[in-house]
Amino acid sequence: MSNAAVAPGKTRVGWIGTGVMGLSMCGHLMTAGYSATVFSRSRERSRPLLERGAKWAASPGAVAAASDVVFCIVGVPGDVREVLLGEEGAIAVARPGTVIVDMTTSEPSLALTISEQARKKGVDALDAPVSGGDVGAREARLSIFVGGDLDVLERVRPLLQLMGKTIGHQGPAGSGQHAKMVNQIVIATGMIGLCEALLYGYKAGLDLEKLLDTLASGAAGSWSLSNYGPRILEGNFDPGFLVEHFIKDMAIALDEARRMRLSLPGLALAHQLYVALQAQGHGRKGTHALMLALARLSEVTWR
Amino acid sequence: MSNAAVAPGKTRVGWIGTGVMGLSMCGHLMTAGYSATVFSRSRERSRPLLERGAKWAASPGAVAAASDVVFCIVGVPGDVREVLLGEEGAIAVARPGTVIVDMTTSEPSLALTISEQARKKGVDALDAPVSGGDVGAREARLSIFVGGDLDVLERVRPLLQLMGKTIGHQGPAGSGQHAKMVNQIVIATGMIGLCEALLYGYKAGLDLEKLLDTLASGAAGSWSLSNYGPRILEGNFDPGFLVEHFIKDMAIALDEARRMRLSLPGLALAHQLYVALQAQGHGRKGTHALMLALARLSEVTWR
Repeated sequence: MSNAAVAPGKTRVGWIGTGVMGLSMCGHLMTAGYSATVFSRSRERSRPLLERGAKWAASPGAVAAASDVVFCIVGVPGDVREVLLGEEGAIAVARPGTVIVDMTTSEPSLALTISEQARKKGVDALDAPVSGGDVGAREARLSIFVGGDLDVLERVRPLLQLMGKTIGHQGPAGSGQHAKMVNQIVIATGMIGLCEALLYGYKAGLDLEKLLDTLASGAAGSWSLSNYGPRILEGNFDPGFLVEHFIKDMAIALDEARRMRLSLPGLALAHQLYVALQAQGHGRKGTHALMLALARLSEVTWR
Repeated sequence: MSNAAVAPGKTRVGWIGTGVMGLSMCGHLMTAGYSATVFSRSRERSRPLLERGAKWAASPGAVAAASDVVFCIVGVPGDVREVLLGEEGAIAVARPGTVIVDMTTSEPSLALTISEQARKKGVDALDAPVSGGDVGAREARLSIFVGGDLDVLERVRPLLQLMGKTIGHQGPAGSGQHAKMVNQIVIATGMIGLCEALLYGYKAGLDLEKLLDTLASGAAGSWSLSNYGPRILEGNFDPGFLVEHFIKDMAIALDEARRMRLSLPGLALAHQLYVALQAQGHGRKGTHALMLALARLSEVTWR
């Protein structure tokens, strides 16, 4: 890809991974006029994009062969390794000048490896995990945490701006992933506090709907409290963000922290409580379902 | 006190406990024209109010003898017990019709006892702990969580409105204290998440000032992050709200929870980390100094 600005009709976009997030995000690029070549584990999952004119590729490498900028948003770090670093992966096939943007929430150390492997082939890589969930993806209001060379970010920024409202450069390769981990650590342990507090208030016989308003306007206020508090009180645990994905993120953060010789007791507790929640059969619920595991601890039946 | 509305020149106010909070709060009542009789552990602490014309009383009971509405904001539940329930305490002396408003953050079960003891004397009692700290008290912007009879609250509401911006009735006696505990539980465990996240980001070499802005606008955003995040990054641990007071609040919440047969692992962890922080000599710092105990855990020198 040349240093000239990206543009529809000129820049060919590739997309690997067309789950709930990828479908919306790639869709925004196509709406803006970009041609797209897509790959996902099953062709069926990409159908909404294929019906709008996206081309199907038989492998991640085939996506890279047909694209100037390759985006990737898949499940777990193992998937990222396979689609980007594998024998038929994107980097093995990409021409020099290609930019690879991994938007999966994944391991910072893997982002470094990807960046190094890409560089050997004259390919640029960014790690650019997102925050904002399926709604953020659908409404193109994601927060995007970017790690890698700033000039590479500037080249693809017009594409990222079609998906997100906040695009923050966090530092060299891996920094985007680290920044996303910081985001998840705040949320994970905060969710324990929110759920325990509501559980306490419930047992104490308080009017929680009313109390929530008072809390929101004071020092206990947070995005989680305002957005998840009412759903917790309704007993509506639809995702949002999936428990099983959150567990993956916390495991990555704990691994990275251990590697940095950093003890994070709050995050470790959150991780264990979410593992319990998953064990109780709630892995496909939203993260605010943590209330169910905390209620179960004390034999409280929640709503 | 009659059912007629309170008014300066007609309603005599009593104030027990003139620490940082009490001085500001009683000061607002005097500014509005109310006459005040005050008592505190040392007369010296009340001087700013005495110089403005408040009368000194030699005991909590003497305050009650001279007042229609008696406010109390002291240190720990033992102090509340002494000044309200003791032999020379306010309830022993108060005339029927007096209203006693305990604004100390204290035990919900003690609030119930106070309410019952008061009722026997024809006295009305409210528990009305506050949130918002010294700044909230100074600027009359406190959130006030009120437990007790609603009609009693309505009678003294004009006085509370001189101290706070949000006055929420939470239910019968003890509910104000319970609601304050809910508030503290959210904040305590959330603070672990905030500090651990920033510590992780620091070890990962991120630009935390920049990251804080991105976090604040997304799903990790909270009052604590916006207000304490920058101070933590500066290494400014002035209170805010004192660690030693926070430890008292958490101990009350844990006791009450145990009484309700409720397990709160996140709060228990927060409590222990704050106990460690106090053991490290930081009891008179602000609650966001939790960063120091978490950094100490992994031998990180914070700022």
